[in-house]
Amino acid sequence: MTQLLRVQNFNVSSDGFGAGENPSLERPFGDADPGAMFSWAGATASWPMRTDPGGSRGLDDYLTRDYARNIGAEIMGRGKFGFQRGPWENLDWRGWWGDKPPFRTPVFVMTHHTRPSITLSDTTFHFVDADPATVLEQAREAAQGKDVRLGGGATTIREFLDADLVDTLHVAVSPVEIGSGSRLWKSPDELRDRFHVDVVPSASGVTHHLFWRK
Amino acid sequence: MTQLLRVQNFNVSSDGFGAGENPSLERPFGDADPGAMFSWAGATASWPMRTDPGGSRGLDDYLTRDYARNIGAEIMGRGKFGFQRGPWENLDWRGWWGDKPPFRTPVFVMTHHTRPSITLSDTTFHFVDADPATVLEQAREAAQGKDVRLGGGATTIREFLDADLVDTLHVAVSPVEIGSGSRLWKSPDELRDRFHVDVVPSASGVTHHLFWRK
Repeated sequence: MTQLLRVQNFNVSSDGFGAGENPSLERPFGDADPGAMFSWAGATASWPMRTDPGGSRGLDDYLTRDYARNIGAEIMGRGKFGFQRGPWENLDWRGWWGDKPPFRTPVFVMTHHTRPSITLSDTTFHFVDADPATVLEQAREAAQGKDVRLGGGATTIREFLDADLVDTLHVAVSPVEIGSGSRLWKSPDELRDRFHVDVVPSASGVTHHLFWRK
Repeated sequence: MTQLLRVQNFNVSSDGFGAGENPSLERPFGDADPGAMFSWAGATASWPMRTDPGGSRGLDDYLTRDYARNIGAEIMGRGKFGFQRGPWENLDWRGWWGDKPPFRTPVFVMTHHTRPSITLSDTTFHFVDADPATVLEQAREAAQGKDVRLGGGATTIREFLDADLVDTLHVAVSPVEIGSGSRLWKSPDELRDRFHVDVVPSASGVTHHLFWRK
């Protein structure tokens, strides 16, 4: 069984941004409104951060359901772990994800500023300074035969796309403009030369873009 | 965790039939053309009967992927097991599904004509003469905490709908008319009083109908 590198539940604005300018401790997505971007996912029964019962079981739920399915490791950019840039100033701050991060696997955080690994509940963050192909090799080994999720942000996904390492992508395009920030694409059509694509509008307002390698 | 009763990947024609008239050993779906009905599913990477690598990974694949997910037992009508009606004439014939049936769990076949259970690879068929609620109770116990799939045919699904026992349904409506046979509905709108519904057209030509209880 091939170990795929998969993007799951990555959200961008209608103008192609994964996050706005000026991310901070209080506002991880900067000038983007997280409600307008992500509320479709939070409404589903299978949303990985859901704590109460209930939730929808329509199209959007089929997508959130796959977030953790057959995933053995995640790769993310440093900006998804936390807001600090440059040398770490505060090693006590252990990222945005709280005591029980939703990843529940080894996570490889790409950064030029490495630091010791951190284990929080069933997630362990490793900090690696390496190119995409090398990080993917490490993540595949850690995933023990399962797939690897490429968690974002947009810049990190672009790096892996540029290196032609991504097998499948699920990108939800939300009906909101951000204007500037961290950009995944100008248009999803940019990927059509290398990927098949299904474009699926949902009643929730987002449009799911499903890509798989040609 | 609730044990759901789920319909997954059930196919009907645009006029609401799950199979045509005159099912036989050679033509399990009778006068319906199985290619026109089911080719969307066979094209997907996750189709449970797929034997070669490859296949699509778009919308249709998200649906076939859920066929076995968290399923611990199946319930089916006798017509899905085989074509014989009335008292069993030939106990040596062990159904349409070959030596390795795709169910891979206990399967409860509803029939007024019981017979000894049959194990084929990792599927065991039990033949039960009972009402839907009783069969569901047996299937839930066999599923050991997992969900139960309601496999069809259309008549069997109708019985469970009439008894209000179904939690979620994925029905793929194929762009082909059959005219007569085993009917699921005149219109999917019949279920709107009791279910939320997402109607999702696929590029393959089928329209996925996703229902979940209000």
